Amino acid sequence: MYLEKINSPSDLRALPPEDLDKVAAEIREEILDVVSANGGHLGASLGTVELILALHYVFDTPREKILFDVGHQAYAHKLLTGRREFFRTLRQFGGCAGFPSRAEDPEADPLMEGHAGCAISAAVGMAAALQRKNSTDKVVAVVGDGSLNCGISLEGLNNARCGGKNLVVVLNDNKMSISKNVGGLSHYLNHIISGNAYNRFKAAVKRLVFSLPRHERLHRAIQRGEEWVKSLFLPPGVVFEMLGFRYIGPIHGHSMPELLRALRRAKASDEPLLIHVITEKGRGCDFARHDPARYHGVPGFDRETGRLPESARGGFSRTFGETMCELAEELPQLVAITAAMGSGTGLTKFAQLYPGRFYDVGIAEGHAVTFSAGLAAGGQRPVCAIYATFLQRALDCIYHDVVLPKLPVIFAIDRAGVVEDGPTHHGIFDLGFLRALPGLTILAPATEAELKEMLHWALHYDGPVAIRYPRGGSAHPDAAVAKLEFGRAEVVKAGDGADVIWAMGPQLETALEVDRLLGGNNTVVNARFLSPFDGELARRLAPGKRIVSIEDHTLRGGLGSALDEALCNASHGEIVHFGWPDEIIPHGAPEKLRECFHLTAPEIAAQLRK
Amino acid sequence: MYLEKINSPSDLRALPPEDLDKVAAEIREEILDVVSANGGHLGASLGTVELILALHYVFDTPREKILFDVGHQAYAHKLLTGRREFFRTLRQFGGCAGFPSRAEDPEADPLMEGHAGCAISAAVGMAAALQRKNSTDKVVAVVGDGSLNCGISLEGLNNARCGGKNLVVVLNDNKMSISKNVGGLSHYLNHIISGNAYNRFKAAVKRLVFSLPRHERLHRAIQRGEEWVKSLFLPPGVVFEMLGFRYIGPIHGHSMPELLRALRRAKASDEPLLIHVITEKGRGCDFARHDPARYHGVPGFDRETGRLPESARGGFSRTFGETMCELAEELPQLVAITAAMGSGTGLTKFAQLYPGRFYDVGIAEGHAVTFSAGLAAGGQRPVCAIYATFLQRALDCIYHDVVLPKLPVIFAIDRAGVVEDGPTHHGIFDLGFLRALPGLTILAPATEAELKEMLHWALHYDGPVAIRYPRGGSAHPDAAVAKLEFGRAEVVKAGDGADVIWAMGPQLETALEVDRLLGGNNTVVNARFLSPFDGELARRLAPGKRIVSIEDHTLRGGLGSALDEALCNASHGEIVHFGWPDEIIPHGAPEKLRECFHLTAPEIAAQLRK
Repeated sequence: MYLEKINSPSDLRALPPEDLDKVAAEIREEILDVVSANGGHLGASLGTVELILALHYVFDTPREKILFDVGHQAYAHKLLTGRREFFRTLRQFGGCAGFPSRAEDPEADPLMEGHAGCAISAAVGMAAALQRKNSTDKVVAVVGDGSLNCGISLEGLNNARCGGKNLVVVLNDNKMSISKNVGGLSHYLNHIISGNAYNRFKAAVKRLVFSLPRHERLHRAIQRGEEWVKSLFLPPGVVFEMLGFRYIGPIHGHSMPELLRALRRAKASDEPLLIHVITEKGRGCDFARHDPARYHGVPGFDRETGRLPESARGGFSRTFGETMCELAEELPQLVAITAAMGSGTGLTKFAQLYPGRFYDVGIAEGHAVTFSAGLAAGGQRPVCAIYATFLQRALDCIYHDVVLPKLPVIFAIDRAGVVEDGPTHHGIFDLGFLRALPGLTILAPATEAELKEMLHWALHYDGPVAIRYPRGGSAHPDAAVAKLEFGRAEVVKAGDGADVIWAMGPQLETALEVDRLLGGNNTVVNARFLSPFDGELARRLAPGKRIVSIEDHTLRGGLGSALDEALCNASHGEIVHFGWPDEIIPHGAPEKLRECFHLTAPEIAAQLRK
Repeated sequence: MYLEKINSPSDLRALPPEDLDKVAAEIREEILDVVSANGGHLGASLGTVELILALHYVFDTPREKILFDVGHQAYAHKLLTGRREFFRTLRQFGGCAGFPSRAEDPEADPLMEGHAGCAISAAVGMAAALQRKNSTDKVVAVVGDGSLNCGISLEGLNNARCGGKNLVVVLNDNKMSISKNVGGLSHYLNHIISGNAYNRFKAAVKRLVFSLPRHERLHRAIQRGEEWVKSLFLPPGVVFEMLGFRYIGPIHGHSMPELLRALRRAKASDEPLLIHVITEKGRGCDFARHDPARYHGVPGFDRETGRLPESARGGFSRTFGETMCELAEELPQLVAITAAMGSGTGLTKFAQLYPGRFYDVGIAEGHAVTFSAGLAAGGQRPVCAIYATFLQRALDCIYHDVVLPKLPVIFAIDRAGVVEDGPTHHGIFDLGFLRALPGLTILAPATEAELKEMLHWALHYDGPVAIRYPRGGSAHPDAAVAKLEFGRAEVVKAGDGADVIWAMGPQLETALEVDRLLGGNNTVVNARFLSPFDGELARRLAPGKRIVSIEDHTLRGGLGSALDEALCNASHGEIVHFGWPDEIIPHGAPEKLRECFHLTAPEIAAQLRK
């Protein structure tokens, strides 16, 4: 056993290089053990084992830094940097975070690495800091090919000169983002690997040459020169070279000697360098290798067979996808846009049924939104499905390209609320930035049936609409839905008790439970519209009552703030808000987090009883 | 006179091509007339006259669409699309917008085009909509080389395939964003033009060849092949070709025959096409040509000599720049980052004095923020100066890369508040999205002296800090500043009158004036900290008082909301907020806008008297 003796990267570096493959095998076993028990990101982490070993072997980590983009590929890095035992608590509340986290280990992980696209820019910054100190240390950004699509990555590449000789970018090319990769860059990377770029180019040259006079001689010259032309005149990384990088690759990402050779060259380099490494998602584990999309992120599973638990999936995402399919029949202008989350947002079936009306633009949320604006300006009816946390990347596009020109784009905001993946992924800030935008209608369905109703409503409304809903489902997905009226909340239950309880989205169920626990004679309201908010109803119901709000959002800027604003000059009793406090909410199962933050129905009822 | 007979693009198309240069001359005169009187964007608009004429001449506008990125180059487009008379009211309240605006003319301008980076993505969307209709129409995105740096542009280029044959990108390359252009892409574009890319490449090949055995023969082969290799083996637009575009260029952007030839080729193309056009900023106007940065955006000036009014500049931006220079002496770790706004944010002198500590990353706000995070993680003390409206582009980077890892980055948010440039540029939403972020301290100085104090304070605080301030200055820039205490507002004036007036930033002056108009015996508070907000003081001062807030921010999410939240369970009189309402605020001089929205001191006092 090697791994148990590696308590820091320097222990690894004491080994002879020929032992590294054995360490790799042990790391794979450990990852499979832990992820099969706790759930986590399997495929990407299995694919980078040799790469991460080679990086720690060649560079003087943790003094020299490695940033991962995104960090779900970094489990081996955690195992090698003194967190072997801690890794057993992966993704558990209070345990090891699923992504590299400065809060967990600022030496090994100087940033948070949960969102795609940030590592190159951050590495350029860290390299610039090294330059100021005249250091020869390197900062390495390990970037998935899916992350490369992302605007911030490309801005970072474009500014590589600021990082100078201290910057190394490792492009971990496994042909996937989470779904299959898309776009011109991905195409280009494929060309590099397959040699097609050169071949197509050669064919074009031949066509051209034959159209010239005296082509025979030229043609002979080309044939003679073919081999050295191939290697010299169109270097495989020409695009990266043109952006100011020295390009090395493609490198076999599971060959330790090849990796060590390339990284040693990088260590000695005196200019920004990009190493293109080809890896296989799920390497060393047959089931993960054969279905990489399915084994990207998984709950606990059977360690031997790979059998995943029956998917309890369904809920809001599934209803969204099914409703989109129904609506597509009725409305030929309906199109769907997603940023690499086709499956997660429930659009797989839509994509199959209507391939010409489904656009997966890759991890490029800003583009997804502005592209949707263009589709709307062209007379289509775009529905843009993005997770709440990733929508933060598109705020300006929402404002500038959709809200200002008042285009009828519908935002389907999935994963709104806390999620298992932790602070980088909690979708609890969206209302803070969306509510301020003039003319953006914001809805939150309490049940799947209400989501369906809201989608129908939004498609008949002439203006931008955002609909936010969490992962999973509600307690009564098919409960009857009252007719939707613009800007109106719904009194779900009127009572003469002391409390008026406002709820946003599926927290309605919590509100009803709180009411039951408090005697069952209170008024319970489903907010439905967060913008425009039904302040009139809030004021009408308020006199003499205690006002309670329950939401899966940070307290600032959400339902609670909307109520405060509505009631500031009204007659009302005490106002009590339940939502996420003004602090960084850690990772853990959402139900566990709700317990810890006293946001379950019994806890809320107990606090209200005091 | 041609121009007065052109009421729509079809009138232009009725002219013979040899008349177009005369139309161009008339358009230049018109632009100079109007901009010298009203102020506006001079250099870029003078540079695109021939290009815009050629576009409208070749394409069937307005059925076929032209999007401008950014729209400050589009004055000729406005003159040719039925807005010749209206253009005389450029940038005046109620008059012609400074940027293309869907609100002004949805046929000619289907989107809003004030922020850089959006046109390619929007054009891809509009082209995709055309594809769904099997149309052969084109959508043309005219993109400045400065805008190309921007992440959304690059995401759009990467997804060009979605636009297919209906997409044309015209790269308007004038070597500037607003300042001089930076970054790898800019470098690459220069290489295309100068041929250096090929030359450097050739030198590298020669070096390599000489290191090989039998190099003599290879060397001869290279010499023999040189000319056709040059033209064939490294096509000038190889990077764009690799991303899926057919590249045409470089084209002389002031030669009508060249432009018409290239655009006709584009019109007939059956694949995404990028035309690289070289233009000169300020073309046809000597003073604008010789100092393009100075004549990028101007107030009214002397039509003949180009003499600009004495700059009353100074105020917050100047104080910021001066303070940065002073602090740089004390603190060797201090570095400054800007996204193409070095001059606008007051950092010109800092850049001259400390070139190694000044980073202009081009129009790439997301990168600017994450790059700053990397610098901070590397032990530097970054101050990242970005306009409020452009900071919207970096929300996720602020959250994910600065706030979550709690890195001590300081955001200097200039142009916070309404500005002359209109709705695309008003900086009135920043608090909505920043206040929700846990652990981000937000400050607003009332005077220049207070800004200086806050910068000093922020540099000694271990955590992320945002400081927001408007364009221009305060009434008493050097007024004595009370010591800053974390999370504490300042009672500027205590009184036993009926009102407690809270002000944010330089609206403190308005608050004091309102107090005077109401009798002068009220309490006036300078909020100073927007997060954490001094709710304790708010509650202490509130009993029995009317609470008034005055801010240069939209009412939702700003100071007013902070007060509502703080006072929801406190004893207080009526609460009255003065800020920008929940609607799209048009363009116009800020003072004019304040009048129209009843936000001047006399208007506020009058409303409070009722």
